[in-house]
Amino acid sequence: MEDLQGRRRVVIENLRPNVDLGRFPIKRVIGDILTVEVDAFADGHDHLIVLLLHRQPGSGDWIETPMESIYNDRFRAQFRLEALGRYQYTVVSWIDRFHTWRHDLTKRAAAGQDLSVDLLIGADLVASAVQRAGAGSHPGKAADVAALKKAEQDLRSKTDQRQRVEVALDQHLLELMEVYADRSLATKVDPPLEVIVDPPLARFSAWYELFPRSCSPVPGKHGTFRDVISQLPEIAEMGFDILYMPPIHPIGDAFRKGKNNTTEAQADDVGSPWAIGSAEGGHKSILAQLGTLADFQALQKAAQSHGISLALDIAFQCSPDHPYVKSHPDWFRARPDGTIQYAENPPKKYQDIYPFDFECHDWQGLWKELRSVFEYWAEQGVRVFRVDNPHTKPFPFWEWCITSLKQKYPDLMFLAEAFTRPKIMYRLAKLGYTQSYTYFTWRNNKAEITEYFTELTQTDVREVFRPNLWPNTPDILNEFLQSGGPAAFSLRLVLATMLGANYGVYGPAYLLAENEPYKPGSEEYLNSEKYEIRQRDLDQGTVLRALMTRLNAIRRAHPALQSDWSLQFHPIDNDQMIAFSKREGQDLMLCVVNLNPHSPQAGWLELNTVLGENWGSRPIQVTDLLTDQQFNWTNGRAYIELDPQVATAHVFQISR
Amino acid sequence: MEDLQGRRRVVIENLRPNVDLGRFPIKRVIGDILTVEVDAFADGHDHLIVLLLHRQPGSGDWIETPMESIYNDRFRAQFRLEALGRYQYTVVSWIDRFHTWRHDLTKRAAAGQDLSVDLLIGADLVASAVQRAGAGSHPGKAADVAALKKAEQDLRSKTDQRQRVEVALDQHLLELMEVYADRSLATKVDPPLEVIVDPPLARFSAWYELFPRSCSPVPGKHGTFRDVISQLPEIAEMGFDILYMPPIHPIGDAFRKGKNNTTEAQADDVGSPWAIGSAEGGHKSILAQLGTLADFQALQKAAQSHGISLALDIAFQCSPDHPYVKSHPDWFRARPDGTIQYAENPPKKYQDIYPFDFECHDWQGLWKELRSVFEYWAEQGVRVFRVDNPHTKPFPFWEWCITSLKQKYPDLMFLAEAFTRPKIMYRLAKLGYTQSYTYFTWRNNKAEITEYFTELTQTDVREVFRPNLWPNTPDILNEFLQSGGPAAFSLRLVLATMLGANYGVYGPAYLLAENEPYKPGSEEYLNSEKYEIRQRDLDQGTVLRALMTRLNAIRRAHPALQSDWSLQFHPIDNDQMIAFSKREGQDLMLCVVNLNPHSPQAGWLELNTVLGENWGSRPIQVTDLLTDQQFNWTNGRAYIELDPQVATAHVFQISR
Repeated sequence: MEDLQGRRRVVIENLRPNVDLGRFPIKRVIGDILTVEVDAFADGHDHLIVLLLHRQPGSGDWIETPMESIYNDRFRAQFRLEALGRYQYTVVSWIDRFHTWRHDLTKRAAAGQDLSVDLLIGADLVASAVQRAGAGSHPGKAADVAALKKAEQDLRSKTDQRQRVEVALDQHLLELMEVYADRSLATKVDPPLEVIVDPPLARFSAWYELFPRSCSPVPGKHGTFRDVISQLPEIAEMGFDILYMPPIHPIGDAFRKGKNNTTEAQADDVGSPWAIGSAEGGHKSILAQLGTLADFQALQKAAQSHGISLALDIAFQCSPDHPYVKSHPDWFRARPDGTIQYAENPPKKYQDIYPFDFECHDWQGLWKELRSVFEYWAEQGVRVFRVDNPHTKPFPFWEWCITSLKQKYPDLMFLAEAFTRPKIMYRLAKLGYTQSYTYFTWRNNKAEITEYFTELTQTDVREVFRPNLWPNTPDILNEFLQSGGPAAFSLRLVLATMLGANYGVYGPAYLLAENEPYKPGSEEYLNSEKYEIRQRDLDQGTVLRALMTRLNAIRRAHPALQSDWSLQFHPIDNDQMIAFSKREGQDLMLCVVNLNPHSPQAGWLELNTVLGENWGSRPIQVTDLLTDQQFNWTNGRAYIELDPQVATAHVFQISR
Repeated sequence: MEDLQGRRRVVIENLRPNVDLGRFPIKRVIGDILTVEVDAFADGHDHLIVLLLHRQPGSGDWIETPMESIYNDRFRAQFRLEALGRYQYTVVSWIDRFHTWRHDLTKRAAAGQDLSVDLLIGADLVASAVQRAGAGSHPGKAADVAALKKAEQDLRSKTDQRQRVEVALDQHLLELMEVYADRSLATKVDPPLEVIVDPPLARFSAWYELFPRSCSPVPGKHGTFRDVISQLPEIAEMGFDILYMPPIHPIGDAFRKGKNNTTEAQADDVGSPWAIGSAEGGHKSILAQLGTLADFQALQKAAQSHGISLALDIAFQCSPDHPYVKSHPDWFRARPDGTIQYAENPPKKYQDIYPFDFECHDWQGLWKELRSVFEYWAEQGVRVFRVDNPHTKPFPFWEWCITSLKQKYPDLMFLAEAFTRPKIMYRLAKLGYTQSYTYFTWRNNKAEITEYFTELTQTDVREVFRPNLWPNTPDILNEFLQSGGPAAFSLRLVLATMLGANYGVYGPAYLLAENEPYKPGSEEYLNSEKYEIRQRDLDQGTVLRALMTRLNAIRRAHPALQSDWSLQFHPIDNDQMIAFSKREGQDLMLCVVNLNPHSPQAGWLELNTVLGENWGSRPIQVTDLLTDQQFNWTNGRAYIELDPQVATAHVFQISR
């Protein structure tokens, strides 16, 4: 009763899209149309006005769009996202007495009733709008006030009832009454919800990962940024958008890892790029062997000229030689013997890595310094960051860090390298990560793939979590690739590129179908590039290179493949084959993959869920864009046979 | 960054049960066990303590229950609801460094590592607990502090490492460290959630509606409360818990409705009980023809002696003769001609009813007066109210009114008579209504019944909305009953009593299977008791009375039928037959109903979903409690045949 809102009669519920009732923003990319739905209702039978409000980043003015009633007290409206950054959106609704009155008057007039009192009620409603118009400050107000006053007089006049009803139902009067509506008892969703508008690359991207250290053409020589520049034409020709490099900073000497992760490094061992920091510098410095800041800038410029963005790897951890260890010992946890706490997974010890102590007394100073690492590279022009192990740093840090950085640089993108439990992965996406690594690498059979990608693309998870599919990484050589031969590499590449609008490969190793693990049962590569220079003859990788080039070209030519939300799986009567489609407008793509790299598989594919029920079983023509072969299908089914010796998949374009 | 919560590392999400993230309380009845689940997780791999907190109505002290990890970062705990009113519950969680340390120490010890530094880390953790214990005010503190200090010393001592590890892993030390845990960075769900604990009748009740005006044994004479008293033994014998009477207040003379809702009443017409108020009084007065307040008290006392609660009908509207119209004309909407706005559904006019204007200037005065109506009758001992058309009064009013009334009278029950759109019906339940009328009356075929009752009993709707199933009311004689003959009355009664733990009937008309509508296509009764006295010879209704008595007895004997949440439908291969079960512990009840009142139906019932997969197809014995016939079923299926001339339904008790 203390609450003076007692007269606000409209209820607004179930506003969608939302994440945790607005606790976190949803995500879209520039150019998207955002469709908003809401339940709005009140007691009784009065007319409701329901408006969708939105405002652009940095703008104070709400733009109002009337919401259309669709069914069962649900309303819908939409607007286009035309700028990067955070839009706000909300819904406002009120009971509009003029609308209710006008509607009732029509029914009373049709029943031939005496309307004298009703017309006076209408005149009173118009009179109160005159007052509001007089008190407000709308442009054109004087003319509006005059028109409203005239209508009020006409409604009160003694003229013929039929004429006064015409005044009452006049369309211009209705519009004026909407402009000067009484919103004093309106209900509004508050605080407003938010949507992050990202660059298009956030939704559709192909990542290529390489180690610059291995890019020198001179055997045994440490590669440089300049060497990477000379590889750019090939990478661009294959069709990649993002070139991602492991950390480029000075590497520590203390406890440096040797080849194959041994604890004793030899004098010439190059160490792990993730053991960051030496006397040379830390997270804002460049390993001298790779080049200078000028070389880095040259690489960035050359990449841009090929339409490629550079992605840096930010790993918040320090080698014992990192300058922070001396300048800010309080940022690390001290042990009772005066030493600094190194990373551990008891009983394993990682003495080459010092984690930051996010609970330290100067946690705010630490946060600011870490954010300044992103700021530094953003100032150098970097817009894409792959973040190492974000799930081992506190969630509040990421929300603050990413939100504040994107206020200044709304085109920044952050890829979360968190291979951990699902709720933690989704939480990181809620906190602001633009894209996320997934469990794709370990989803190899039909049931697993169907369940996982249905969850990622057909549930509310998709409002925040953008999957990025990697068939391999320098950390993960999956058992399926180890044992499946070249066909395994081919089919996993088709799945990554076709299931995911965002995907990436650890390129040089993939092109050569490298499949030797460090030891049986391990997912680590033998002679991993993480600990040594691995120069390769990429001309050996022509088959997978051709497939990669073709798949990337198909992705760029087909809008259906540039988003994940339309993904649908279709029945095919062989458990070792999977079929799925994506569509966008008239563009309809259908993939069928033999998941068994060892033997030919065949099955009947049901077409009705691909083409929709209206299609019935009319014949259609499809083209396999991998081979340019055409097929004619009739009777609502198609027989598909795939021999991995020949082809592991079809990528069909369907003409309707 | 301004937010000093940056070091709170635990995330708590998805706490269930909840309604709109805690905006509204959930509902239970006294004696229920409330099971709470939640996701809790943090960055990294530290140990989490997760506690469920609850407190009783009016108590300031939280009771803590450790939550058990169940899977995938989800935790569960429960507590018993032992008092009426509103309990609060919430979850608190923090990262516990002692637990993490103890766990790691075990692994390090097993690996035979030197633990000298680790034991000192543990000593420091114990030392900080000593500080907290010293600063706190727990009883028994001195002994605890001493024990902790001893443990700290032992951990720091120079004795054998194995002995010190024993100290570290001591169970009592662990318990003390839990009592004096560092909760300074704990995460807590705030504000807490709430659960309304109602009397058992809220979950399980049988309502009988009658018009006292028709209860006189003397033909043509207006019935009284004393006449109702003499009918109580029969009503109790049939097995009803609640006797519900239409409004008992003085009835207006102005625009009084005649028989069959005609606009001209004859001198001796009694009018509609919902046209409330005359010179005699209003909502706190009793129609003189029914008796005095003393008579009402006598009726209430007599009902109680039969285990029956009285339910009053509260209809917030006035006849033009209501005292409020003179004393508070500002509570009604004035028309420009000085008259008061009557109820309308244009072009229809209801001039005998003045609705309150909840948007009037003195809305707070109006609200308080309306609440005082409930208060008045509560002071007279009434605990159950059926509220007429709550959906035409503002939602904020109901939330305030019911919440504040139940603070004083936690055993009050409110039944919402809102036959309107689904979201509005659910909203009223969220606002505090204890039970709600449903669409049951219009759900007559198998698909409709299955869909509707699955929504009501197997979705989150059930956290707030308790369905009350009425096969008829004085306003609703459904077409199915009009045309289905006696079998329709029988089968709809079985459905109401077996589908719904709460149900009700407009008894006298139902017992006599009255099925004549006012006119074809209408759901109004011919010669409706709403407008005239209808004395009946209830001895004509022996068949339905026997069925009603039997069904009520079965309900009282079987816990499975006393709640709705276990409802499950089962496949039977005839679209005109429906099968469903309910269970509670070992009590398993199965109903099969022939939905066609005109012809015999037969079908095969699948038993595996009734009995569970473990049961396989072992033979079982079932007893039809309506006939006491026994059947033996084998092979996982049962053949059921129901001839409406003989029986419309089986109500099986299943012995396992």
